[in-house]
Amino acid sequence: MWVEPYPEFSPEKPLFICILANTGTARIPGISAAGKTPELTDYTPAADAELVETGKAISITEPAMCPSGAPTPAVLTRASMLLTEIPCLFISAGLNVRPKVPFFDLNAHPGGDIRNGHAVEDAGDIYKKSAALGKKLSKLSDLVIIGESVPGGTTTALGVMRAMGYNGMVSSSFPDNPQEIKDRVVSEGMKRAHLSFGCLKDDPLCAVGHLGDPMMAAAAGLVDGLGTKTILAGGTQMVSVLCIIKNLGLKRDVSIATTCYVADDKSANFREMIEVLGFQAFIADPGFGNSRFKGLRMYERGEVKEGVGAGGAMLAAAMMGFSQKEFRERTEEVYGSLFPIS
Amino acid sequence: MWVEPYPEFSPEKPLFICILANTGTARIPGISAAGKTPELTDYTPAADAELVETGKAISITEPAMCPSGAPTPAVLTRASMLLTEIPCLFISAGLNVRPKVPFFDLNAHPGGDIRNGHAVEDAGDIYKKSAALGKKLSKLSDLVIIGESVPGGTTTALGVMRAMGYNGMVSSSFPDNPQEIKDRVVSEGMKRAHLSFGCLKDDPLCAVGHLGDPMMAAAAGLVDGLGTKTILAGGTQMVSVLCIIKNLGLKRDVSIATTCYVADDKSANFREMIEVLGFQAFIADPGFGNSRFKGLRMYERGEVKEGVGAGGAMLAAAMMGFSQKEFRERTEEVYGSLFPIS
Repeated sequence: MWVEPYPEFSPEKPLFICILANTGTARIPGISAAGKTPELTDYTPAADAELVETGKAISITEPAMCPSGAPTPAVLTRASMLLTEIPCLFISAGLNVRPKVPFFDLNAHPGGDIRNGHAVEDAGDIYKKSAALGKKLSKLSDLVIIGESVPGGTTTALGVMRAMGYNGMVSSSFPDNPQEIKDRVVSEGMKRAHLSFGCLKDDPLCAVGHLGDPMMAAAAGLVDGLGTKTILAGGTQMVSVLCIIKNLGLKRDVSIATTCYVADDKSANFREMIEVLGFQAFIADPGFGNSRFKGLRMYERGEVKEGVGAGGAMLAAAMMGFSQKEFRERTEEVYGSLFPIS
Repeated sequence: MWVEPYPEFSPEKPLFICILANTGTARIPGISAAGKTPELTDYTPAADAELVETGKAISITEPAMCPSGAPTPAVLTRASMLLTEIPCLFISAGLNVRPKVPFFDLNAHPGGDIRNGHAVEDAGDIYKKSAALGKKLSKLSDLVIIGESVPGGTTTALGVMRAMGYNGMVSSSFPDNPQEIKDRVVSEGMKRAHLSFGCLKDDPLCAVGHLGDPMMAAAAGLVDGLGTKTILAGGTQMVSVLCIIKNLGLKRDVSIATTCYVADDKSANFREMIEVLGFQAFIADPGFGNSRFKGLRMYERGEVKEGVGAGGAMLAAAMMGFSQKEFRERTEEVYGSLFPIS
């Protein structure tokens, strides 16, 4: 099976949501590979949405968004949306660059650099608005898969987990996880905000306010409002959302889906965290080792790993009965139309 | 029956959509009563969305939006949403003032003053993006009711109908319909754009580009993409959308719902147009003659008449089995919490 455990759902009205946000944290050099340069990461969420929606990143000239040339995981997500025909909606939880395709606007601000110790001033407001939206969508859909595109988001995930007292080790879009930089950034933010490890375990939204990013508040709020069956699609960033949900005391039918690249990342501890938290996890393997494209084979070497809900998008494809081969071939089609020569 | 004919639908996943847009045409003095002053009409769509969503208009200080003090029809729409619990989504098709509640952003520009002869430069693009959104929503909902909040929108409706060769007489949010001003404005725009009556009958989106507003392109695109059962909720503005749909040659299960105030407006010709066009119409009567509030009784004198999909919202309430009395009482509750003394 290319998704483990095999997703035995048959939803009538599945829905895929991708939450977009920026955080000033992504501009710290060396933090994020989700963009050619730290400044260009501002464009990544918009470009990801455009790519999933239209097959082309409109807001940037080059679609290969990692410095290495490995393609954005939006390529995987688009492949799944094309295969499954599940409707995909985008939510802006706070962006510097707005996508040129339709999206839900929560009317929130981009997050700040967490080194300042305050990052998401309107976390409570974002949560509430997102919960209201979730309540509406729960009347239309019986299974919602929630992905994200937030460059710099593993560092904010580390910050929020620390503030809530979790020893979460976060993954990275780089093959060599810049853990030292992330540690330093989080420590600086905690110091500035006078926070200690675990001191905000009973106030998750306050932790987001100091050290998180706007996506976290939006994702947690959405899960709260939805009530229906929900799958968080992402790696360690979505683990931090599970921490928030757990510490808020929310009782919801929520699980997590990610790629094998995150689950097997030895610099992170995805499986351990899931066990500690007590949620179900789905792990998806696109089998890119067999791909005819170098860019996709790069994933096997630890480039990119996850994002734009790629793991959940694969779960969706598996749930609708598509094989790993069908998924990989459709991904190759999407990829090939973007990079005809590589 | 307070809605004629009685709506015999039992949708499983109904959805209410309200399309918001501004047009520079609304700033022409005497055109629109949807705002205390012509300049303040810029705030009306945002305030309407906020009122439906939260019970309070956040972007303006006073919720009584007509110069006369008659309340916005958003009050009626909110009452229906509270009664029916149908999810309501807002779409911005081009706004000067963005609502402070979540909405779908089509990333389009507000419309210009049609006296210039060009009003919606991106009509084709809005149509396409809206159709794509409609296609997604068709997978979630089996009945979509589409309302609008576009101050100045009856004048653009007149323009578009003339350009397509329809003798549509449009209604007004004023009790005394300022037909002469509207005629003059439309004639000026047609002259500037070198258009004659009916010359764009085969190119409805070009008619919208010259003399329409962004809502029209968004509503027609949505109907195209949805495919599913759709009800346009509005008066003569939505009649102009039906003209667009008909002249585009779209075959869709679409009908129209409006208030008795528009249907019985002798300065307009709603019923005649519907017969000419060959669509089904639903007419809703909130029975405000019996209201204990003066503001609501003003509707019986021809103030406001329709907007924010109020007619379709009443149809929704009737469809879900609520009586005229139940609807009126809930409207009075909403109204009473806004204007405790009137």
